[in-house]
Amino acid sequence: MSDTLSLYKKHLREIGKLNSSLSLLHWDQRTHLPEKGHSARAEVIGKLSKMIFELSISDELGRYLEELEERDDLSERDRASVRVVGREYRRYRAIPPDLFEEFSIARAESETAWEKARAASDFASFLPHLEKMVDYSRRFAEYFGYSENPYDALIEEYEPGMTTAQLREIIAPLKDKLAPFIKHLVDEGTRPHTEFTRGKFPAEKQRELSRRALEAIGYDFTAGRLDTTVHPFTITTGPGDVRITTRFLEDDPFSGLYSSMHEGGHALYDQGIPDELRWTGLDDGASMGIHESQSRMWENMVGRSLPFWRFFSPIISEVFPQFAAASPEEIYRAVNVVEPSLIRVEADEVTYNLHIMLRFELEEGLINGRIAAKDLPELWNEAMERYLGVVPPDDAHGVLQDVHWSGGMFGYFPSYMLGNLYAAQLFAKAKQEIPDLEERFAKGDFSPLLSWLRDKIHRYGRIYDPIDLLKEATGEEPDSGYFINYVVQKYSEIYGL
Amino acid sequence: MSDTLSLYKKHLREIGKLNSSLSLLHWDQRTHLPEKGHSARAEVIGKLSKMIFELSISDELGRYLEELEERDDLSERDRASVRVVGREYRRYRAIPPDLFEEFSIARAESETAWEKARAASDFASFLPHLEKMVDYSRRFAEYFGYSENPYDALIEEYEPGMTTAQLREIIAPLKDKLAPFIKHLVDEGTRPHTEFTRGKFPAEKQRELSRRALEAIGYDFTAGRLDTTVHPFTITTGPGDVRITTRFLEDDPFSGLYSSMHEGGHALYDQGIPDELRWTGLDDGASMGIHESQSRMWENMVGRSLPFWRFFSPIISEVFPQFAAASPEEIYRAVNVVEPSLIRVEADEVTYNLHIMLRFELEEGLINGRIAAKDLPELWNEAMERYLGVVPPDDAHGVLQDVHWSGGMFGYFPSYMLGNLYAAQLFAKAKQEIPDLEERFAKGDFSPLLSWLRDKIHRYGRIYDPIDLLKEATGEEPDSGYFINYVVQKYSEIYGL
Repeated sequence: MSDTLSLYKKHLREIGKLNSSLSLLHWDQRTHLPEKGHSARAEVIGKLSKMIFELSISDELGRYLEELEERDDLSERDRASVRVVGREYRRYRAIPPDLFEEFSIARAESETAWEKARAASDFASFLPHLEKMVDYSRRFAEYFGYSENPYDALIEEYEPGMTTAQLREIIAPLKDKLAPFIKHLVDEGTRPHTEFTRGKFPAEKQRELSRRALEAIGYDFTAGRLDTTVHPFTITTGPGDVRITTRFLEDDPFSGLYSSMHEGGHALYDQGIPDELRWTGLDDGASMGIHESQSRMWENMVGRSLPFWRFFSPIISEVFPQFAAASPEEIYRAVNVVEPSLIRVEADEVTYNLHIMLRFELEEGLINGRIAAKDLPELWNEAMERYLGVVPPDDAHGVLQDVHWSGGMFGYFPSYMLGNLYAAQLFAKAKQEIPDLEERFAKGDFSPLLSWLRDKIHRYGRIYDPIDLLKEATGEEPDSGYFINYVVQKYSEIYGL
Repeated sequence: MSDTLSLYKKHLREIGKLNSSLSLLHWDQRTHLPEKGHSARAEVIGKLSKMIFELSISDELGRYLEELEERDDLSERDRASVRVVGREYRRYRAIPPDLFEEFSIARAESETAWEKARAASDFASFLPHLEKMVDYSRRFAEYFGYSENPYDALIEEYEPGMTTAQLREIIAPLKDKLAPFIKHLVDEGTRPHTEFTRGKFPAEKQRELSRRALEAIGYDFTAGRLDTTVHPFTITTGPGDVRITTRFLEDDPFSGLYSSMHEGGHALYDQGIPDELRWTGLDDGASMGIHESQSRMWENMVGRSLPFWRFFSPIISEVFPQFAAASPEEIYRAVNVVEPSLIRVEADEVTYNLHIMLRFELEEGLINGRIAAKDLPELWNEAMERYLGVVPPDDAHGVLQDVHWSGGMFGYFPSYMLGNLYAAQLFAKAKQEIPDLEERFAKGDFSPLLSWLRDKIHRYGRIYDPIDLLKEATGEEPDSGYFINYVVQKYSEIYGL
């Protein structure tokens, strides 16, 4: 009997090692691979991905899981592994292989069509692909199974345990408060001055700045590295190796810094996952939302706070002397401008969630058949007007802006919002449990927060599902009140209201 | 029937893709991997290596080979693939798996012991490991089989078709001429001036210099990249991606440049292997010796030539203005100092082959049982005195300097020498067939040589065995006369004799 457990663990280790290799192939593809190496690299990535997929749905693994699920003598960690791995196993196996292959081909075509459609702002050419993607996702939802709403079956992939009903509850107060608050800020508040932030900021100096910030918050450069890419990301190529990438805009010293701190937040999570969980199926974040809570907390609640700038303004002044004339308060205000805008990835922390809400409402409607894909552009623009008071001039700046739907990733967007909400809820708890947290920030000491997160979140990897983990850490269900309080308080002060 | 051929090719493509992945893991390990990632990386590398090895000795592959070896309707390329892959298959299968595993463990211990022994210059502590490595190699030679000399069975790994007898023939004239010629140079010649090459040369500027040289000789940076490592190397992570590494010494502008050109020579070979050979077992150099001939040719016959410096002296003067006062002739002489010395990897092109000859004689004696491992230090020092007139002060600078024997790589050293000899023979032929070759060099145009090598060597990959390839290209058997003429003529002139 105990032999099955060893065989099971060995199987997961094999998958883990191949995944490690695959991650490196991906990382290199986006950072270092020379132009002419891409075509062969795609084949190598395809081969490794297929091997991993086959091992993840193998009959062998199925037999191990079946036997281990019956056992009552497993350690808590082993039980968690069996639960998490078993859940994914059943999801992968639920889809008939032929259907999945058909979908994979359609997806590749859809992604290519989307790229072209976005470039030409031509929704009509993308529509047939989008319709297919919606259709596949609806069929998958039936295969996966759900009790209330087919959309639940899709969220499960990114946020296990979360349901549409619970999301609606979480969102309701946000919806009531956020849009009016933004209007209030913009119409009646005083926009911070940003003129002093203009200039040319060489990439090499910005890298130095990012490095200093990452070192300060506790990112371990002996277990990772910082490179540059067009689209920043964090990737774990193996234990002891959590890499981040960022990008620097030469006319903006903050974009690169916050991109680094955002990825740094993801990386602190991954660097904090203990070695015992290595290659057990548990060596990752609890969910996309919990992962995003870490990146958003370090980027916004830490990096865009006044205490942070009390510590960091001498450092930015050392790297870019033009900031020596600015006070910490001035920089703090300048990095916290609120501006309703068209593009999600460029949105500030106040307006960001409205972008997500809009997407959530539309995609949930698509999956439930209440909304037809052909009506999306109109519905999108109406909602933008309603939530943010801005209307896209074309679909490239509207419904075509995100890659997710082209790849059939319905159910992913809510994680971004949940990340912000979880971050606020966790941060409020941390402040309550560590009374001098922000004074420590002002001295450049971020270790109390990191230790708290390590203890409450990081060390568990995927042992707990996200909502259970949050409850364990904060004593409460997910509650958007924390986020609302955070933004209302912070931005009322900044905007002099 | 034709189905077997497709299955065989598919099998090789699978191996090729895994090898591509493994190469990237190795490259990254030596260039970018953070400190704490090494332990997991070793496991991932172990896993991939094992998978590749298993596929390379699988019964399935054996059946394909057996069937294909009987067929007379294969294309020339397919026949070559079956020959090359079949040869390796039989070598791998010849060793009983248990014995190979035992050897692998002993080898890891031996390599570790060697590292310590070299650091402490303590041959005695390494001796028992060395004895084991000799013993394993002798047993392997019996399993591999040979007609005359067990050492032949070991050379075969690196230089297929070469024998001890033929090596002795090739070496005899070298042995007669080289040692007296070096003595003549050093005792009676005029050593070039090198004072003007002293200074501090920042790594970033040296990188620029290497880049300019590599671009000039035709290295394609869109199908590769240049990084820095302690021990420079060339690695193909896949078609369209041949990477090189180099290292820069801040007090020497030439060490890094020539290391780059050496690796660049290897890389030009790999970049010239046609895409049709990708993942067929033929997408590599014909042998270690032929590979080394390419690196040594670009490093020495091109990079250390007067025509090269006629082209390159304005460039080095642009990067390092102190060279503006030196003529091309002066730089040319300064980079061609001959100096009998203790360490092989630092040897100039004239003395280098004597280092190899010494190793060849000793290792051939070890494998044939004429020499006992315990007598190596004494024999080494005697031979150094005889060939080069210098005696190591300790074993760290003598018998312990190279890693090869600690890993059981007997039969490898001759490839280095053959590389020099093949290079001279090929270069003489190229000069004969392209009369204005060196005038073109002086104008910075190296494409006639590269095209010639592409046509005669690169495009064949491993289709031909090394000696056949050399005969095809030059019309002659390997002949050390070309190398002797090259060094005698070049260095007599430089040393004013």
